[in-house]
Amino acid sequence: MLSVADAVNAVLREARPLDVESRLLTDAQDLALAETVRADWDSPPFDKSLVDGFAVRIADGSLSLPIVAIVSAGEVPNHSVEAGVAVQIMTGAPLPNGTEVVVPIELTREQIGDDRQRRVEITTDISRWKPGTNIVRRGASTRVGDVVVEVGTVLRPQELGAIAELCGSVVQVRRPTRVAVLATGDELVPIEQTPGPGQIRNSNEIMLCAQVHRAGGEPVPLGVARDERAELHSRIAAGLSADVLVLSGGVSMGEKDLVPSELTAAGVRKVFHKVNVKPGKPIWFGVLDRADSSRCLVFGLPGNPVSSMVCFELFVRPALRRLMGIEPAESHVISAQLTQAHTTKGDRPTYHPSRMECLPTGAVVTPVPWVGSSDLRATVAANCMALFPIGDSMYAAGTGVDVVEW
Amino acid sequence: MLSVADAVNAVLREARPLDVESRLLTDAQDLALAETVRADWDSPPFDKSLVDGFAVRIADGSLSLPIVAIVSAGEVPNHSVEAGVAVQIMTGAPLPNGTEVVVPIELTREQIGDDRQRRVEITTDISRWKPGTNIVRRGASTRVGDVVVEVGTVLRPQELGAIAELCGSVVQVRRPTRVAVLATGDELVPIEQTPGPGQIRNSNEIMLCAQVHRAGGEPVPLGVARDERAELHSRIAAGLSADVLVLSGGVSMGEKDLVPSELTAAGVRKVFHKVNVKPGKPIWFGVLDRADSSRCLVFGLPGNPVSSMVCFELFVRPALRRLMGIEPAESHVISAQLTQAHTTKGDRPTYHPSRMECLPTGAVVTPVPWVGSSDLRATVAANCMALFPIGDSMYAAGTGVDVVEW
Repeated sequence: MLSVADAVNAVLREARPLDVESRLLTDAQDLALAETVRADWDSPPFDKSLVDGFAVRIADGSLSLPIVAIVSAGEVPNHSVEAGVAVQIMTGAPLPNGTEVVVPIELTREQIGDDRQRRVEITTDISRWKPGTNIVRRGASTRVGDVVVEVGTVLRPQELGAIAELCGSVVQVRRPTRVAVLATGDELVPIEQTPGPGQIRNSNEIMLCAQVHRAGGEPVPLGVARDERAELHSRIAAGLSADVLVLSGGVSMGEKDLVPSELTAAGVRKVFHKVNVKPGKPIWFGVLDRADSSRCLVFGLPGNPVSSMVCFELFVRPALRRLMGIEPAESHVISAQLTQAHTTKGDRPTYHPSRMECLPTGAVVTPVPWVGSSDLRATVAANCMALFPIGDSMYAAGTGVDVVEW
Repeated sequence: MLSVADAVNAVLREARPLDVESRLLTDAQDLALAETVRADWDSPPFDKSLVDGFAVRIADGSLSLPIVAIVSAGEVPNHSVEAGVAVQIMTGAPLPNGTEVVVPIELTREQIGDDRQRRVEITTDISRWKPGTNIVRRGASTRVGDVVVEVGTVLRPQELGAIAELCGSVVQVRRPTRVAVLATGDELVPIEQTPGPGQIRNSNEIMLCAQVHRAGGEPVPLGVARDERAELHSRIAAGLSADVLVLSGGVSMGEKDLVPSELTAAGVRKVFHKVNVKPGKPIWFGVLDRADSSRCLVFGLPGNPVSSMVCFELFVRPALRRLMGIEPAESHVISAQLTQAHTTKGDRPTYHPSRMECLPTGAVVTPVPWVGSSDLRATVAANCMALFPIGDSMYAAGTGVDVVEW
């Protein structure tokens, strides 16, 4: 049976970055840049004051100086700082020519001279101040042409701010991935209904849609398809218009597990069926190649909720990263020490819902009590999955295990 | 001057959780529960099969058994498992009475008997299997009344799924916080414009709005107010209708720093002005108490972009957590070791943009090269801020410092 690593590689081989599109920066949060953005100008764009105060020459520090001009942020200085004068200046305002230092207003005293002109007296000794004190020079942090944000970076608040300041209001990004979500199974009822005997609610749709949303994709919920060929056929056809179709249920060995054959009938090329993993062994993956050379990646996830959730994080999430241009697309694996002994049962590598914490002494992880793949409530206490590579084994406290954060 | 800790406490003393509202679960992702949710029924709601296979009695393992019924998921079994018969069963289907174990279909062989009835032969020795093998019992993971999700929990995919399965489709949550964002300054132009001499773009609005969004709030961008009383007055009045008003700029010592006086004139009660922190010293905080006993928290952040960003994370973010019912509201502080020596200058505790990583040996942090509070580009390389509590000091590699993730 395929290993998880081989299965992830098989998925990523089929996943290609989606189209690039121009977007307003205000509409690009959490998308990935499809270009490397460079500065269109220096930052700061001019020498400027870091404080509210007075622009002077150092040698004039002990004099009472006439205030010959005021320059506020947004203005252009119309007066130079000559010997024996001061220019009042506000934080962020452009520096007048001739300025050596800016003395903060807190270190000055203002007077009115005999000529009724405002004057300033500096109340501290500035004779040993270095030229440039309380001044930031043009280009001090960024020069024209410097890289502001690298291609493939996800746009967080600081990237949006830095691009807005230095480059402009439009960026090239990979468009968000549309992910259709289709739950299958005669036992499923919508979550607003009370289940009858033998029935359960379709909790996978809301969970998988939330996982898509968190991954930066656009979920397209398609409801429940009964285990019946005609209904599956039409719902699958609808789902195949998305970039990714995620199904849950119908991929096991049962007589009503019609998903693989219906996908094949719809023209989806099977890449693999079954992976050596717990939970999630029956997972199915294939690709629809369209005439326009675009494609739909199709994941048939096992229907038990924790199987669906874990398989989404293991296999669908990396695919979404690749589609949206985020590299590396592979899951970020952290090594953490078990806080307590742990026993796994069964013959497959197991991803156990766990709670990870980063301590000064290292990352630690605690598997949460978990009954099995139908026990979604257990994952409420978890923030990661911990890999126990061998089944039927006992892991001592302190053992290092691989962890993937959710 | 107020310490950061005292300032955060002062903010949190004024911040009260917002109203509770009923929401469709499908519209509640990333909001915080305002109720503790308990299970309305057992999970699983009935004894069910974990595999596709045959429900039998252990003693019958060596016989060829007639298949007297088939039960699929979503059905109710209409036949018991008596001695000497098998019931075919699908994954997730309710267990027929009398079942002792379910034998996976892979470990069986099907035959057609002389009477043309389907029969099954078990190809493995099940005589030492325990009763309950491949069966999950009703209530195994959750019983009626068990806590599913605690009050104050932020709704992630797994919480949404677990509540959908066990409780229903409507939850009580704290409503999202509306946060008005108003940049002030004559030097600012909108981000789609090319700045003239002495001007810069209003990059704070998009950055602060993105920070609000990431914190689960609803940003209300109000554009730029010039440093002029009439304009500030009307924009502030508009912003005060939100739950939180975040201003940037206009809180320093300059002649055009009109924000504090205009806020006071608008009825905002000052709580503090200035905090002993770098960047961000001039921060102003106050509260508007409305006649209906609701309030607006007002933050005047310094205008330099990194000051705005850091002050948002230090002071506004905890307030948003408290308003949205997320506890603890205080920032989560991680202790990490410096990967390299680091020197701070100046007389204030400094939050330096840094890159944190969680290694098996412990959390480590590297301050990024950073020119100062106007150098937003530096924060693109950062994922946290590291606190250097004493100014003008040298910290050796390996020193433990407090880190807050962004």
